[in-house]
Amino acid sequence: MKDVYEYIERNKDRYIGWLQDLCRQPSVAAQNRGMKEAAGMVEQLLRQLGGTAEQIPTSGFPVVYGEFQNDKETALSFYNHYDVQPEDPIELWTSPPFAAEIVNGRIIARGVADNKGNLIVRLAAVDAYKAVKGELPVKIKFLVEGEEEIGSLHLREFVDQNRDKVQADGCIWEFGYKGADGRLQACFGVKGMCFVELVCRGANTDMHSSNAAIIENPAWRLIWALNTLKTPDERIRIKGFYDKVAPLSVADREVLNEMDYDEESTLKKFGLDSFLLNLKGLPLKEKLIYQPTCTICGFQTGYTGEGKKTVLPSEARVKIDFRLVPDQEPHEIYRLLREHLDDHGFSDIELIPYTMTNPARTSLEGPLARAVVKTAKEVYGCGPIIKPMSAATGPMYILCQGLGIPSVSAGVGNFTSNNHAPNENILVTDFIQGIQHIAAIIDQFPREMMAEANAENREGSLT
Amino acid sequence: MKDVYEYIERNKDRYIGWLQDLCRQPSVAAQNRGMKEAAGMVEQLLRQLGGTAEQIPTSGFPVVYGEFQNDKETALSFYNHYDVQPEDPIELWTSPPFAAEIVNGRIIARGVADNKGNLIVRLAAVDAYKAVKGELPVKIKFLVEGEEEIGSLHLREFVDQNRDKVQADGCIWEFGYKGADGRLQACFGVKGMCFVELVCRGANTDMHSSNAAIIENPAWRLIWALNTLKTPDERIRIKGFYDKVAPLSVADREVLNEMDYDEESTLKKFGLDSFLLNLKGLPLKEKLIYQPTCTICGFQTGYTGEGKKTVLPSEARVKIDFRLVPDQEPHEIYRLLREHLDDHGFSDIELIPYTMTNPARTSLEGPLARAVVKTAKEVYGCGPIIKPMSAATGPMYILCQGLGIPSVSAGVGNFTSNNHAPNENILVTDFIQGIQHIAAIIDQFPREMMAEANAENREGSLT
Repeated sequence: MKDVYEYIERNKDRYIGWLQDLCRQPSVAAQNRGMKEAAGMVEQLLRQLGGTAEQIPTSGFPVVYGEFQNDKETALSFYNHYDVQPEDPIELWTSPPFAAEIVNGRIIARGVADNKGNLIVRLAAVDAYKAVKGELPVKIKFLVEGEEEIGSLHLREFVDQNRDKVQADGCIWEFGYKGADGRLQACFGVKGMCFVELVCRGANTDMHSSNAAIIENPAWRLIWALNTLKTPDERIRIKGFYDKVAPLSVADREVLNEMDYDEESTLKKFGLDSFLLNLKGLPLKEKLIYQPTCTICGFQTGYTGEGKKTVLPSEARVKIDFRLVPDQEPHEIYRLLREHLDDHGFSDIELIPYTMTNPARTSLEGPLARAVVKTAKEVYGCGPIIKPMSAATGPMYILCQGLGIPSVSAGVGNFTSNNHAPNENILVTDFIQGIQHIAAIIDQFPREMMAEANAENREGSLT
Repeated sequence: MKDVYEYIERNKDRYIGWLQDLCRQPSVAAQNRGMKEAAGMVEQLLRQLGGTAEQIPTSGFPVVYGEFQNDKETALSFYNHYDVQPEDPIELWTSPPFAAEIVNGRIIARGVADNKGNLIVRLAAVDAYKAVKGELPVKIKFLVEGEEEIGSLHLREFVDQNRDKVQADGCIWEFGYKGADGRLQACFGVKGMCFVELVCRGANTDMHSSNAAIIENPAWRLIWALNTLKTPDERIRIKGFYDKVAPLSVADREVLNEMDYDEESTLKKFGLDSFLLNLKGLPLKEKLIYQPTCTICGFQTGYTGEGKKTVLPSEARVKIDFRLVPDQEPHEIYRLLREHLDDHGFSDIELIPYTMTNPARTSLEGPLARAVVKTAKEVYGCGPIIKPMSAATGPMYILCQGLGIPSVSAGVGNFTSNNHAPNENILVTDFIQGIQHIAAIIDQFPREMMAEANAENREGSLT
């Protein structure tokens, strides 16, 4: 692969140019801003590299789909997205969010880390591999959606209608970072989510708070209801909530032990003295990676402006996200929550479902895992930090595990990439290494698939 | 007094004109809108009626002070305010808020019930009494402030600097209503208030909610803290909170028994099936009038807009009003709350004090009480409903009880006056009766004072 790596080095300015071009095109799904143009640019790039390309319509923004080397049997897919988060608060950016300026070795732009950098890295890897080797050793599928930042609203619909296009032997997931220690992290799963809103209602109007002596306050009721959901020891009190949480295997614990988590840097970054429940070390990592959560994301009732207003609110609302781990199922959690509220005398509290996303995990063994880890060692000089799960959530189950497709994430973000925040950035050096890593995976994955098949055949012949 | 009542009837159009003029002048303290003009109109009216009048500056809006019949020894003061609430939501008004139109026997205007109607009633009573009788039997003091709707911010300062002007033998308080049964309510006290904001802080920035697995959520902490403050049985759990609540006397209970409270109308008006804790009858009235409260007036944390956002908030804030009853003291309650939070492991929660108002009560006996009750029987045909306390709060302690001055409220609002709300109104008939009632009090109060003095002298001579 040395020849490919060198080709990438020699052509880096061209690839950086592709990335700058794409970052200079705003594509904010939440505001329907520049979406058509960005989708068109991705389609155009796929064609330019000799792939097939089409925009497949959904009820929302289209998915850009591209294919290379359709004659190969083994298929590797890349899941990415062309939409980005809004850029506000714009005044906190040190260079314009859509200028893609390079400052001190960093490309600064909204979307450069999440997720345009990884998208261009994968396109560049295909380009370089083809340029040097002539043809790709594996069928490549690009699945580039336009709604990741607004919750992948129509991805399930797309999958249902395009099963053949989604089918693959492995999928490289959209995100990926180096940690505070500078080592690449390879992530093998994501938490699921059950996002709900609870609404508690009182009188038909806000009223003078003197009435609170005799008229029920929905804010108090909601607080008492919430207090039954989770106790200060962080234990979630919904009956059956933990029943399907898969126990940790010995391998899971080993990986967790090896996983580096820079506690000091994180605490410093967020101005904190300690983590939740004073956790440190292994229990901290276990909670972050393997434990479900119940998080109040927003609570609103009554008057919340400056100063005082003596009002008895007519309504109180809370938004809660439950992050789920295998094998919790979001619709079941929703049902258990409803039962919990009913059992505790809060059957009047309305429950509004939002996102329902299954958690997803890929085995740490298998051809894709091996290909990603081996090639990372080669390109980065040391093996990646294995993250069995990300604490975050994505539609991995819909696109991969729900269809039996393994998926691993590896990408070019860093510890201070500021995804979703001002001054989002990636390092130019990470960008170049990322292209080399993906090119190496393209080379290695079909070999690992073949080795696996041979091993299975041997096993088969033995029995 | 028949001659005075008839004079009022004959001159009612003139008095309604005064009220309309004043209501047509917006005077929204919160927006500093028309305040100077309204204060000038009140000063002008006082002078026109032959009183002295001046605007006494404070650090906020001035107090308009007027005096009549300075040669009399007994002094009766009227506490009113020339400021009004903002008129929004303006689209819900059926006639313009500052047009003071008369529709179906009701004068509709922002401030007509709270408090311009009562102010003009008292000025008109002085006018009518003087016109018919030549001179007033009692010294009259008008204390008309401009900041009642924004919390009487500088009333204490005014009182401290103008003790002589505030001094009186009795004070007719600013508000007053007829209940759903159409009977006048005479109110002998107000609850106090300790209004605070609690602020709980977490990391130095809002962050992705996946971090909630290991980073403390200030929203949860605040909910757990609140849960220790009040339990679903409505018992306030702050140590010592109830220690100074004065026990009910036999007279208090009797009054409560006689006090009419239209449960059905109230429930219907607010779209409710039942009152708090399913209270009815005497316990309901006791809780409304004699029990302190702890009310969440507002709670804000994280994302509270449409739909979902998976954020771990960096801060949570709650606004709480404690309505206090005699002899609770707001600064002591504040101190007990601080101790409670510290004792329960929430010493990190910041406590911001806003209003600190003492509760106030006037004895149901005494010259002013007797004057108000006797004259109400005469004017309205039946005695007033005695409300020993209002469930609401006002600066009565600062202006009256703190200086040993008894105070009683009686005024011209009604059950559907919509104070602070669209279509604020009073009935023209209530307005006229109100003038007659105040004129009768002006006549009766000095007689009651004299009778009291004579009785005391007799008692004195016996010992």
